[in-house]
Formats: sequence, C-alpha cells, structure tokens
Amino acid sequence: MTSLASIKWDDQGLIPAIVQDASTRQVLMMAYMNAESLRQTLELGETVFWSRSRSEIWHKGATSGNTQKVRDIYVDCDADTLLITVDPAGPACHTGEVSCFYRTISEFTAHTEDTHA
Amino acid sequence: MTSLASIKWDDQGLIPAIVQDASTRQVLMMAYMNAESLRQTLELGETVFWSRSRSEIWHKGATSGNTQKVRDIYVDCDADTLLITVDPAGPACHTGEVSCFYRTISEFTAHTEDTHA
Repeated sequence: MTSLASIKWDDQGLIPAIVQDASTRQVLMMAYMNAESLRQTLELGETVFWSRSRSEIWHKGATSGNTQKVRDIYVDCDADTLLITVDPAGPACHTGEVSCFYRTISEFTAHTEDTHA
Repeated sequence: MTSLASIKWDDQGLIPAIVQDASTRQVLMMAYMNAESLRQTLELGETVFWSRSRSEIWHKGATSGNTQKVRDIYVDCDADTLLITVDPAGPACHTGEVSCFYRTISEFTAHTEDTHA
C-alpha cells in the first residue's frame, strides 16, 4: 500500500483525475477523487471517484456496466492532478458518447445561444 | 466572438483545462482558465491560463518560448472542463519533461517516502 500523503488534495480534500483510453489515447472524462476513492481505485483496479453532486463514492460503471480498468496512474509535477489510463468497458459519458468531450467550444456556444435565443 | 456565459465556471471563476498534444495525443498538462484567459486563448490561438499561484494571466511560453498553438477546444458534457488540443513548440513542463505527467503514482509515492524517511 503506497502512502498518498504527499498528494496535494484541494481544500475540499479532492484531486482532479483525467481519464484517458490507454489504447486510443482519447481523453474520456475528468472527475474528482478523494483519498478513499483513490485507495479503492488502487485496490480494485477500476476507477472509483468522489461524486461532488451526490457527495458519495462513485464506482464508475457499477450501475451502467461501463467500468474502466486501470492501466496506469500518473501524478503531475506539482502533485495536484492525476492522469489515469484505462481500458474502458463502454462509453465514458452518461450521454452514451465515448468521451465526455464530444463538442467543440463553438458547437457548444452556438447550441447554448440557440437555446437561450 | 462566441458567448462564454454558458460555461460553468467554479466558485473562483475558473475552469480546468486539459492540454493534449494534437499529434501524439499525449496529455501534456492541466491548468486553469478564467473567462479573460479563455477569451485571449481564442483571440491569440495559443494557450493562455490563469495562474492560481501568481494570481495573474499567464501566456504559456511567453518567457520559455514553449507556446502551445491551439488546434481545437472541447467542452465536456456538463460544461465544467475544457480539453484543448495543441501543437506544442516545446516541453509543457517547467522541469523540461514533455508532459507534466512523467511519474506514475508508485514512482511518486516511493520518491516522496524516501525523501521523508
């Protein structure tokens, strides 16, 4: 068991975790981990996050089946961001898209401007 | 000029921005943008961030020369994270490494445990 004390958790005890497909190298999503969810991720070998909206531990894919098998976890130079490479069992996004980053900013702003017009 | 009002800025007016090499698909770094730095990024076509440690606008590479030419900017499903694909002019990391994510978590914790032993 590795010590996680040197990781720079934010003032809410969280660290952002970027999830990347290990094979295609597509960036799939970003979510947050607390120490307990990171510990469970290391133990389980699948991504486990902290849901900020539901304030609970969230084992990705526990209900949808779209788990993410962890290949490697990287820590950045100032130890306040994680990069996790995974083999995903299905789409990362709740919309069914492979990646949560499925819109460019111009598509996004055009759409939201239409919506509010 | 696109409207950026629909982006979900956090309580400090920031949004995390993941930076990925457009060619190699390597994840290079993560940094934060406020509305003004995103506006400047769109205008300049190079990444401009908000430095949380220095509390100032930070044009990446302005002093080092290691600018990042923007290819595309993506917004995630809940509009609270950006993914920016770039052509980097040099290493992303201040250490000289191509990517800030140059250590696995076991390398990181082993090193920091040695340091504090």
